Amino acid sequence: MGKIRVAIVGATGHTGGSVVNGLLEEGSFVVAALVRPMSIEKPIVGALRRQGVEVREADLEGPEEELVRALNNIDVVISCVRESKTQQQDQISLANAAKIAGVKRFVPCGFGVVAPPTGVMRLRELKEIVYNHIKKLWLPYTIVDIGWWYQIAFPRLPSGKVDYVAMGIADEILGGGNVPSAITDLRDIGRYLAKIIVDERTRNKMVFAYNTVMTQNQIYDLMEEISHEKLERNYLYQVADNTIYDRVSECRLSAASSSTDPTTSHPLILAEHKLSWGIRGDNNPDYAKYLGYLTSKELYPDFESTPFGDYLRSVIGGTSEGRTWGLQD
Amino acid sequence: MGKIRVAIVGATGHTGGSVVNGLLEEGSFVVAALVRPMSIEKPIVGALRRQGVEVREADLEGPEEELVRALNNIDVVISCVRESKTQQQDQISLANAAKIAGVKRFVPCGFGVVAPPTGVMRLRELKEIVYNHIKKLWLPYTIVDIGWWYQIAFPRLPSGKVDYVAMGIADEILGGGNVPSAITDLRDIGRYLAKIIVDERTRNKMVFAYNTVMTQNQIYDLMEEISHEKLERNYLYQVADNTIYDRVSECRLSAASSSTDPTTSHPLILAEHKLSWGIRGDNNPDYAKYLGYLTSKELYPDFESTPFGDYLRSVIGGTSEGRTWGLQD
Repeated sequence: MGKIRVAIVGATGHTGGSVVNGLLEEGSFVVAALVRPMSIEKPIVGALRRQGVEVREADLEGPEEELVRALNNIDVVISCVRESKTQQQDQISLANAAKIAGVKRFVPCGFGVVAPPTGVMRLRELKEIVYNHIKKLWLPYTIVDIGWWYQIAFPRLPSGKVDYVAMGIADEILGGGNVPSAITDLRDIGRYLAKIIVDERTRNKMVFAYNTVMTQNQIYDLMEEISHEKLERNYLYQVADNTIYDRVSECRLSAASSSTDPTTSHPLILAEHKLSWGIRGDNNPDYAKYLGYLTSKELYPDFESTPFGDYLRSVIGGTSEGRTWGLQD
Repeated sequence: MGKIRVAIVGATGHTGGSVVNGLLEEGSFVVAALVRPMSIEKPIVGALRRQGVEVREADLEGPEEELVRALNNIDVVISCVRESKTQQQDQISLANAAKIAGVKRFVPCGFGVVAPPTGVMRLRELKEIVYNHIKKLWLPYTIVDIGWWYQIAFPRLPSGKVDYVAMGIADEILGGGNVPSAITDLRDIGRYLAKIIVDERTRNKMVFAYNTVMTQNQIYDLMEEISHEKLERNYLYQVADNTIYDRVSECRLSAASSSTDPTTSHPLILAEHKLSWGIRGDNNPDYAKYLGYLTSKELYPDFESTPFGDYLRSVIGGTSEGRTWGLQD
């Protein structure tokens, strides 16, 4: 039996880059990247080629038969498209083509926090439309969610030591800061995928692959312990939790009036994530199991993930990869 | 430990009647029926009382706190509401109340054929909205589908012998008549439920409880064998399968213009069912397993269901219960 042939959409993004690295490291996959015609000459695509990735031209909005041809001989498709509505919906034609091409497993864009299928996060609802389309096609699939990234889960320090890499997203503590939420090193995603996509137990299932579960207060404690700095704790939505719902409603109204403008959709995505993992507490293994996910802890008890403390030490020590971890486009 | 307390919504309908009978026969349940205030004096409700059912007044469209009170001490709620959009949506407030009342398992209205969550049957989509709401609430649930009823799966005979009970729904053969589809005796539904609702394996899962799988041609063959009559086979949508899609589209247009009128919604429901189980072939155990269902054959291999041949012999012999099997409202 030859190597398993995997096609990745969005190989030049954060998640896609992790997947490319994880699969190549593992060694038993032939990796192809589906790249839009307009991007085919970009330096980043050249970098993929030098890594040993086969680059195939494919336009998700182009004719179906061309997409089917681009998937010729492919065993597994992994879709790491972006958060926009257009990119999420493009997966419909990708799934149709995968069905015709005889793809044996389709991994649609999940790679997010655990959340209910509808009613809390618009991004999750967009994904649900794709999942339901896959089910209508009777296309073999695996949905993989990975929680929140290490890379955006820690706050800045008063000394400014981590400003070279911190995004500022964790500078607010949601509610009382005591809601457990699952976090994962972005760089481990691909290593999880290398196991998941060849695992018969995960066929037609949802998988929650995460490294550890922590509250925001625990993360702040750990940062203080490693850095020997005292952190200010900026509690948001603590007194009246309902204000987060107002914030989400405001963002929904702005986003509805301009559904393709990232300056309105991005605040909505952030506000809804904060509501889901920070207040409701959706992003944890118990709720995931209730929703039907298998978890990486049960499937791969021996998986060696990067401990969050080790990651934070590299960040505070100034040796982290910075904001441009992995490949960018 | 006392008996398990089960509240049934729609206890006077076909499915609800089967559930009442099945649970009472089993003997380890206290059965309550939630009945609308306007129906509380109906003779059929008196019949329920005489069976040993506790009747509780409850208005699904009334205040939430009253609904919570009506669910006091209830362990399991089984919702056998009707097919209308209003009745399906009423389950949202029922689920909210069940969550507050601490109900340990909620069985929403499934009790249908296996079909993809969206894109094929509007009725299935209405149910999906309820299922997703339940998941958002983190309310323990079991979804049960049962396939197509024996009672509407057989055609009329030239002699007229079965006209006292046949509904005429099976007088057309869909496509070539060779699509396998799962069928179940309406009277067995409650007996399945008596097992499913106390089974830890079915918590937060979908279950496909069915008696047997047959094609329409096999059903016609069996009818001929038992009756010694020759059946005409009226193949529909055989040459150009696409006409079923046109029929569904026409029905959708009519139904959209008057969403509460059963004379437009009923033809749509029928046309979509025919497309799903007769042409697409959704209503079978393999597709159910792909969609995540556990099946009764795996869960309860020793379950003694009524063989379809036995049922047909009683129908042809003139001893079937007729169109009014079970209780009616």
